[in-house]
Amino acid sequence: MPSASSGADAAGSSRATSDIPDIELSIFTAATESFTQKNTNCSIAESLERFAPIMSRAKTLNLKVRAYISVALGCPYEGPDVDPHKVAELAVSLLEMGVDEISVADTTGMGTAPKTAELLKTLNAAGVDKSDLALHFHDTYGQALVNSVVALEHGIRTFDSAVSGLGGCPFSPGATGNVATEDLVHCFHSLGAKTGVNIEKLAEVGDWISGELGRRNESSAGKAVLSRLKKSQ
Amino acid sequence: MPSASSGADAAGSSRATSDIPDIELSIFTAATESFTQKNTNCSIAESLERFAPIMSRAKTLNLKVRAYISVALGCPYEGPDVDPHKVAELAVSLLEMGVDEISVADTTGMGTAPKTAELLKTLNAAGVDKSDLALHFHDTYGQALVNSVVALEHGIRTFDSAVSGLGGCPFSPGATGNVATEDLVHCFHSLGAKTGVNIEKLAEVGDWISGELGRRNESSAGKAVLSRLKKSQ
Repeated sequence: MPSASSGADAAGSSRATSDIPDIELSIFTAATESFTQKNTNCSIAESLERFAPIMSRAKTLNLKVRAYISVALGCPYEGPDVDPHKVAELAVSLLEMGVDEISVADTTGMGTAPKTAELLKTLNAAGVDKSDLALHFHDTYGQALVNSVVALEHGIRTFDSAVSGLGGCPFSPGATGNVATEDLVHCFHSLGAKTGVNIEKLAEVGDWISGELGRRNESSAGKAVLSRLKKSQ
Repeated sequence: MPSASSGADAAGSSRATSDIPDIELSIFTAATESFTQKNTNCSIAESLERFAPIMSRAKTLNLKVRAYISVALGCPYEGPDVDPHKVAELAVSLLEMGVDEISVADTTGMGTAPKTAELLKTLNAAGVDKSDLALHFHDTYGQALVNSVVALEHGIRTFDSAVSGLGGCPFSPGATGNVATEDLVHCFHSLGAKTGVNIEKLAEVGDWISGELGRRNESSAGKAVLSRLKKSQ
């Protein structure tokens, strides 16, 4: 993990003034054997074994560790019905190893409102605290916001997203980017949530980066906010 | 209304075997004065006056009449805060005139989950039966499915949508198409609803019409279903 090591060194100065370092180490496993093999070239059990020395070194360096559980709501190789108990079992193992946060990822966008609710109930029943969880949705089937609202209603307060819907996954055929941050923020603001994010500035950033990368801006809310701003000028 | 009259004639033969004709007349008003002027060139009160002789003729011809209330959740000219009591008052007037169904339209896509819930509660309190309502969402801000789920939970069972997200509104600057039928059907199926729609055939139709029109297919679910089908072949 060379980037994590150099990152730990780089963050040395900020650690002098805070117990929480600025950098974070991320480790990846998945809810199905097929995807774990394709994404990380090992079995799920092997991925956990590999994490042990990484976790030990991370704790020595006082690094926060975030673990991802990919394909938690559908797998490109094993289909849409991923066992939520497998996800919960993995989450418990990862927390016992000392990870600080788990990002439960709907890598394929196969997640639905009832499946999201079932997974969160199963995680809760397994003793996983909702404050240790982040939800990570892709909008491949257009359901990311519906699923996010379900997660919000279940007490989840950390969500992964990407401005203008950037991203994807090379090991998940047909995968689209993460849910657009602009869409998620607009939705959460509409529900009365306080995010501290300025949606207009965010929309400008999303449009700028889309232009730089020569990609289409995939955020509906971002484009609508910019269209409204342009009209009012 | 020449198209309605000719349609009524054309439907004569099918009316011989059924009380419900195959064709339907649609009339349009809106929840704000500014939009009514721009869209139909009259005031709201004038739009209702104009409907009277049309309704009378429609009833003589045994035509079903559907009334649209545009900009019910946000107006391009008057902003996002449209008075739900104005919508309810209009709905009651239209039902008293004898319309068979009212499509409550979020023309601008400014609708949010709480605003949708408030509007449906206000309509209910005004005595409007949910079976007389259809909801019509545009996905301009990406909130159409979230709002549709709220409406579904409030007992609404009729929704307007367009395959591959076709459509728009020339009098609503920046408007995008209707919510894509594929996304709506995928969402409702995931919630256990029975629609009678084959999502794979629907996705094929959406892709075909997008190609014919030289437009991008705006349905996430449609594209994801086609990608999955292609992979399995």
